[in-house]
Amino acid sequence: MEIKVYEHKTQYYETDKMGIIHHSNYIRWFEEARTDYMEQIGLRYDTMEAHGVGIPVLGISCQYKSMTRFGETVTIEVKGIQYNGIKMKLGYIIRDKKTQEIRCTGESQHCFLDEQGNPVSIKKSYHDWHAVFESMLEK
Amino acid sequence: MEIKVYEHKTQYYETDKMGIIHHSNYIRWFEEARTDYMEQIGLRYDTMEAHGVGIPVLGISCQYKSMTRFGETVTIEVKGIQYNGIKMKLGYIIRDKKTQEIRCTGESQHCFLDEQGNPVSIKKSYHDWHAVFESMLEK
Amino acid sequence: MEIKVYEHKTQYYETDKMGIIHHSNYIRWFEEARTDYMEQIGLRYDTMEAHGVGIPVLGISCQYKSMTRFGETVTIEVKGIQYNGIKMKLGYIIRDKKTQEIRCTGESQHCFLDEQGNPVSIKKSYHDWHAVFESMLEK
Amino acid sequence: MEIKVYEHKTQYYETDKMGIIHHSNYIRWFEEARTDYMEQIGLRYDTMEAHGVGIPVLGISCQYKSMTRFGETVTIEVKGIQYNGIKMKLGYIIRDKKTQEIRCTGESQHCFLDEQGNPVSIKKSYHDWHAVFESMLEK
Repeated sequence: MEIKVYEHKTQYYETDKMGIIHHSNYIRWFEEARTDYMEQIGLRYDTMEAHGVGIPVLGISCQYKSMTRFGETVTIEVKGIQYNGIKMKLGYIIRDKKTQEIRCTGESQHCFLDEQGNPVSIKKSYHDWHAVFESMLEK
Repeated sequence: MEIKVYEHKTQYYETDKMGIIHHSNYIRWFEEARTDYMEQIGLRYDTMEAHGVGIPVLGISCQYKSMTRFGETVTIEVKGIQYNGIKMKLGYIIRDKKTQEIRCTGESQHCFLDEQGNPVSIKKSYHDWHAVFESMLEK
Repeated sequence: MEIKVYEHKTQYYETDKMGIIHHSNYIRWFEEARTDYMEQIGLRYDTMEAHGVGIPVLGISCQYKSMTRFGETVTIEVKGIQYNGIKMKLGYIIRDKKTQEIRCTGESQHCFLDEQGNPVSIKKSYHDWHAVFESMLEK
Repeated sequence: MEIKVYEHKTQYYETDKMGIIHHSNYIRWFEEARTDYMEQIGLRYDTMEAHGVGIPVLGISCQYKSMTRFGETVTIEVKGIQYNGIKMKLGYIIRDKKTQEIRCTGESQHCFLDEQGNPVSIKKSYHDWHAVFESMLEK
């Protein structure tokens, strides 16, 4: 299966007085792309939450390489970096759609929690999902 | 009891490329001031939610009078306009703290919902809260 | 020319602890749809700003009719309500894409400012744009 | 001089459907605290921008340790980690105000740009500011 790269069109409300996109929005775009990516491989956030499994963020990092401006569209490439059944790490590359110039790169780390806030082992409790998460690493 | 006027210091992430505070933030400041106001009169959002009562927004209006810039602090005055046990309407005046120039005026309308999403009559089910909500109108 | 209705896919970061989309985001979606609409009729925000013309918001209103949840996509219909060369008013209808249930309706009022913050008459100074703005009212 | 630790009261619009503060807001709180910290040591963002110097973010990292909920107030401690006249790195510790439990730790990296987007050496061009930035590292 071919993963379709996520696109985000920048919005006026995402700009700041420096005239560029405020840096906090890239963290939100990571989430947009992550949700889309997981949906494409068959792991919908809302389905997992309906099963009582949340996917909180344990850590975020972002290196800003160039500035994004209002009116531009960016592409966000997601890939699986680590997954062991309990935690996962995803990587992101944001590029300007037109020029393909890299805007930023980053990573997010996650675990899985049940509704009581306790860690969930996807490996033990959700075999189908586990197989899909594992397949992420091969892409 | 004297209500203390709420203050908000503007943040860089609230600006847009016009160099001013983006208009959508005033709606969020209404909420900040509303939460604070209700807390001051003894109706905490989190307490009400712990009792299973949510306070969704039914309508919002905002008239922008002058521009707010990064680094300025605004004051937000809240007052009760209508309340009938089932719905309420609040009014807001946002002013520059230093000059007292009016930045915007607005209103929000609300109802009360239980956890199943059904309307709640505060008048019938929460007599203590009802008395406090009624007292808002006299201020 | 047929205007294409704008679509927005709801994001996790737009939800609040009531489990629904926070009401302030609809104001941002109005802006997304307005920008897209103006682009479709040939009036790009960034082009106008490059000519030194900003389009600040003078007023906003929004009536919330039903709740939007994470994972849903909404459509946002925009139409021109008033325009006199100096000010304009636009109307919005947000619907669930799948069921077409109305999520909210609203309006925004705008004027036009030059880079010194003075009012601009589009009618007097930008004849081509004026013709396009006028054509909005016929749609 | 004693630096006063910055406080932020969490807002409803900062929550997400997991019932906690959305992780992207911590990046914004870093900015709030950074602005306040720089103001306390005598380096106001708006003053620097009035001199044509912007302070873009080159990188951000954040490790989330525990969850913050609506109604809680957090404290945000800032400290200077690196500064060489051209770039700087700041560190952050966010704690629950009441329990002092650590909510997250993080860092931000910055450079200085003039209005044409070219790097500025604070060391060479702004001696007074340079002395203040250097003094950060001793705190």
